[in-house]
Amino acid sequence: MELWFTENHSENVRFSVRIDKPLYSEQSPYQRIDVFETPEFGRMLTLDGYVMITQKDEFIYHDMIVHVPMAVKKNVEKVLVIGAGDGGTIRELCRYGSVKHIDLVEIDGAVIRVCREFFPEMTASLDDERVTVNIEDGLRFVRHKKNEYDLIIVDSTDPFGPGEGLFTREFYGNCYNALTDDGVLVNQHESAFYENDAKAMCRAHERLRSVFEVHRVYQAHIPTYASGHWLFGFASKGLDPIKDLDAEYWESLGIKTRYYNTELHRGCFALPNYVIERLGGGKEQ
Amino acid sequence: MELWFTENHSENVRFSVRIDKPLYSEQSPYQRIDVFETPEFGRMLTLDGYVMITQKDEFIYHDMIVHVPMAVKKNVEKVLVIGAGDGGTIRELCRYGSVKHIDLVEIDGAVIRVCREFFPEMTASLDDERVTVNIEDGLRFVRHKKNEYDLIIVDSTDPFGPGEGLFTREFYGNCYNALTDDGVLVNQHESAFYENDAKAMCRAHERLRSVFEVHRVYQAHIPTYASGHWLFGFASKGLDPIKDLDAEYWESLGIKTRYYNTELHRGCFALPNYVIERLGGGKEQ
Repeated sequence: MELWFTENHSENVRFSVRIDKPLYSEQSPYQRIDVFETPEFGRMLTLDGYVMITQKDEFIYHDMIVHVPMAVKKNVEKVLVIGAGDGGTIRELCRYGSVKHIDLVEIDGAVIRVCREFFPEMTASLDDERVTVNIEDGLRFVRHKKNEYDLIIVDSTDPFGPGEGLFTREFYGNCYNALTDDGVLVNQHESAFYENDAKAMCRAHERLRSVFEVHRVYQAHIPTYASGHWLFGFASKGLDPIKDLDAEYWESLGIKTRYYNTELHRGCFALPNYVIERLGGGKEQ
Repeated sequence: MELWFTENHSENVRFSVRIDKPLYSEQSPYQRIDVFETPEFGRMLTLDGYVMITQKDEFIYHDMIVHVPMAVKKNVEKVLVIGAGDGGTIRELCRYGSVKHIDLVEIDGAVIRVCREFFPEMTASLDDERVTVNIEDGLRFVRHKKNEYDLIIVDSTDPFGPGEGLFTREFYGNCYNALTDDGVLVNQHESAFYENDAKAMCRAHERLRSVFEVHRVYQAHIPTYASGHWLFGFASKGLDPIKDLDAEYWESLGIKTRYYNTELHRGCFALPNYVIERLGGGKEQ
């Protein structure tokens, strides 16, 4: 028997992964959660039929959403992570000695439960004593926070379903208020190649730009995401992701990574012209 | 009726593209050639079932295989292009006023004939008076050339079938001899993510490194190639792709591009750690 999982990257493009064995399936109040064993990618988590995480390439996403801001904003102590029930972002954050407290806010407790069972290497840090797991709506959680976090990471699903509120202007405005003066917000920022992804990218960019003084977009090669070219947003009240990068500081921490390095940090902000144009032109996005 | 083209990116991963209409199919003496009309990518050329070119993203490949070397080796006059029967590489080269002569060497005349019919916007420059089209084996063509070309572009298919000889040490050695002292060779260099591609990448790198004084690998996001993360090789007898980049010179040429820019030029050589490690470690690949 052959079993294949298929995700539509657009109406006209399909990405299919051979499945050794479906390991788990659940309809939570928020979304359908599936875990598969695959020969190419190891275990794979999908939410509502979209690939979220595979064991083979999750290091790329988690390196880029964590180490990029951490090499710019030094000595981060307090972090808010929204989404990220799979634990990968928390795992990377916990490698920093400076971090004293992490609030993880995940709307769907089932994601955490399932990932604890099937991805123990990703979720182990959820038990770190510095981490508080809050099962609630990130939109609501951040609403009344003021000047509290050095770093906010929005590790959301796509901007429909449970992730939708995490792409609104109201949410970004509340994040702005929740950040310290030299705080940084990073978010998953969709993609530029397929039309629906590109529209979501533009909307996120417009809104973040209207709220934050600095907003830049950076890229990574993530093979299991649509087009393989995935984007992240870097927003701050003043810190610049290139000028304020302290490569020497970051390298002195001795954090070993499989994707990120400080040369690549500089490189990942150099976007292709068609992406710059789509984002609204100019070298300053 | 639904019609889908499928390419296996590995034994366990498939990439499928919806077809509006198959436009052409031919078994040449060298390979199977197909052209499809697709709603997502426009027209698409496949050779032996592998996507070579689509109208939607061919600009990425052609920008990166041409403008990267042209911004380092200035005032290129004589160019040898091996493969590239689709004409896209020649089109980009012909935008440079310095170029006086281009030898295109394509083993399979049928590819040129088919592309002239179905991709006229790519093949138009094949009629440029500076271009000589040679229908022959690139391996043989380059064998007795000495100190003749400022730039050699190896725009090959994958290292099996007709493209196989273009990944051998003998071929790279002959290219070395065919280049002027400050000449540059650029080639399509496979990919790092799926195992078979990664093996081909390593072999090409090992061989180029054993022949050329300088060999560096750079990357682009090409959505229709396996993993979306595609690599190119830059080899020379001394010119360095970063230190010898002359951004001001290149920008003064006024060549408008949709992917390449000189910031991205610097960025594209900043590889992820796992690629550096796979290539044999160290910052100097």
